[in-house]
Amino acid sequence: MLITSTKNPKIKQLLELQQKSAERRRTGLFVVEGQRELEHCLAAGYEVESVFVNEELRIKNEELVLPQGLEADGDTSPSYFTLAPHVYERIAYRGSTEGVVAIIKSPERGASSLQQILKGSTNEDGLENALFIILESVEKPGNLGAVLRSADAAGATAVIVCDPLTDLYNPNLIRASIGACFTVPTVACTSEECIALLKQNNVRILTAQLQDSELYYDTDMTGPTAIVMGTESTGLTEQWRQAADAHIRIPMLGRLDSLNVSVSAAILLFEAVRQRQLKHENG
Amino acid sequence: MLITSTKNPKIKQLLELQQKSAERRRTGLFVVEGQRELEHCLAAGYEVESVFVNEELRIKNEELVLPQGLEADGDTSPSYFTLAPHVYERIAYRGSTEGVVAIIKSPERGASSLQQILKGSTNEDGLENALFIILESVEKPGNLGAVLRSADAAGATAVIVCDPLTDLYNPNLIRASIGACFTVPTVACTSEECIALLKQNNVRILTAQLQDSELYYDTDMTGPTAIVMGTESTGLTEQWRQAADAHIRIPMLGRLDSLNVSVSAAILLFEAVRQRQLKHENG
Repeated sequence: MLITSTKNPKIKQLLELQQKSAERRRTGLFVVEGQRELEHCLAAGYEVESVFVNEELRIKNEELVLPQGLEADGDTSPSYFTLAPHVYERIAYRGSTEGVVAIIKSPERGASSLQQILKGSTNEDGLENALFIILESVEKPGNLGAVLRSADAAGATAVIVCDPLTDLYNPNLIRASIGACFTVPTVACTSEECIALLKQNNVRILTAQLQDSELYYDTDMTGPTAIVMGTESTGLTEQWRQAADAHIRIPMLGRLDSLNVSVSAAILLFEAVRQRQLKHENG
Repeated sequence: MLITSTKNPKIKQLLELQQKSAERRRTGLFVVEGQRELEHCLAAGYEVESVFVNEELRIKNEELVLPQGLEADGDTSPSYFTLAPHVYERIAYRGSTEGVVAIIKSPERGASSLQQILKGSTNEDGLENALFIILESVEKPGNLGAVLRSADAAGATAVIVCDPLTDLYNPNLIRASIGACFTVPTVACTSEECIALLKQNNVRILTAQLQDSELYYDTDMTGPTAIVMGTESTGLTEQWRQAADAHIRIPMLGRLDSLNVSVSAAILLFEAVRQRQLKHENG
């Protein structure tokens, strides 16, 4: 179906889903833009509600290679829309170059999915390889997206956001993660639920905090480990500090006393990677 | 002096310096916005050419606490300007909240200043503690700013940009660095000059590259070390690969195969910090 007006109800729905987290929550839908992002999204098993393709590419006689699972539907499907260039421009962040946007069904990603992940990562040695990064009350979707990118690189088991002030399907988050929001399992739950599940499964809780802490590289991260970080402004709540098995800090050797949260996460995650590799080599 | 028109020649000068790197090069001047950034800038010994303060703060009867070295000049100085709110808004990125912008004289930061830094960091053990991060052909000022922030935290000796496609005084760079461009010495020179100086001073060159490389944590970084990184898109040139004493890589354990350059820099710098701390403890 060709859409030529920005007032089309389907376009209105898409704009609402992009702009309002309440609408995403209410409908259980969210929006993904870009071929690469959609590839990761489909590979992770997400279900497509509808696809929007830029008509301009057809005018220019350029072929749009859709990710596997999208191309099959083709023009005859009721969930496949071709958009006039000015309509596409209205809904796309990146201009027309990539030419594809989709509405996706959001799966359950609450405490019960954390339970599944914890069960799934149990092997003969218990949760030997589990490595979680937990963000408390994260506010900026861009920061969460960048943390997901670091977590993907370090092969983290999952990213858990506790009492978040952003949702997991914010367009800025998806963009900043360059698709890592689909390659790394993510969970949103309360701090209380999270602490209880980690304790039940004997995952060691390491809280990143400046006061009353040891240097991160002096801390054992070879067992099942959860690294917990607060916001850049207010740090972690007392609830997490008290639940911790150890408090860790990155030494600040400069004058600014501040690292971006995705940078801190990467430093801590890769220390776990280093320690595990070393342990593996030494038998 | 009170400026009430955006067409005032001083305002035009300021806008040109913000927008054009050629103008910054020609005049040897650049622009810094914000109290915190100006504090770091003055603490680092930079010289002020002129100061612009938002008149609105005085209207609201709010006191603007200027960094030390700026407040002394006061209203009588020919280089101190008060701006009508609409004029201030025109020149400020952050709106009026901080209320201060300054034109600063840019010092020499070429190969000869790298020579000075290398000389200065020589102690009885040679360049024992020197730790450089080198970016080849960096394009995005925001990326360079973020690397500076990581370099500040790790206590790096200096950040060197070789054959850069951005200048060291780009407003986006200064903003992304949250002042680290003033707390960490920075140098811009050609790759040829840089390699020659590092070799002369026996600084070990480690190039970050995926092919033909060892894991970064298997590489000794306790001696004088320079970590060299290319652009995210094209990587390092052959010139650097051949100049290297070792090739190092961060293991990519996820599916995206990509880390932000400031994140990679931080992981590598903090591994050097860890190794040096360990060596220090073991005598």
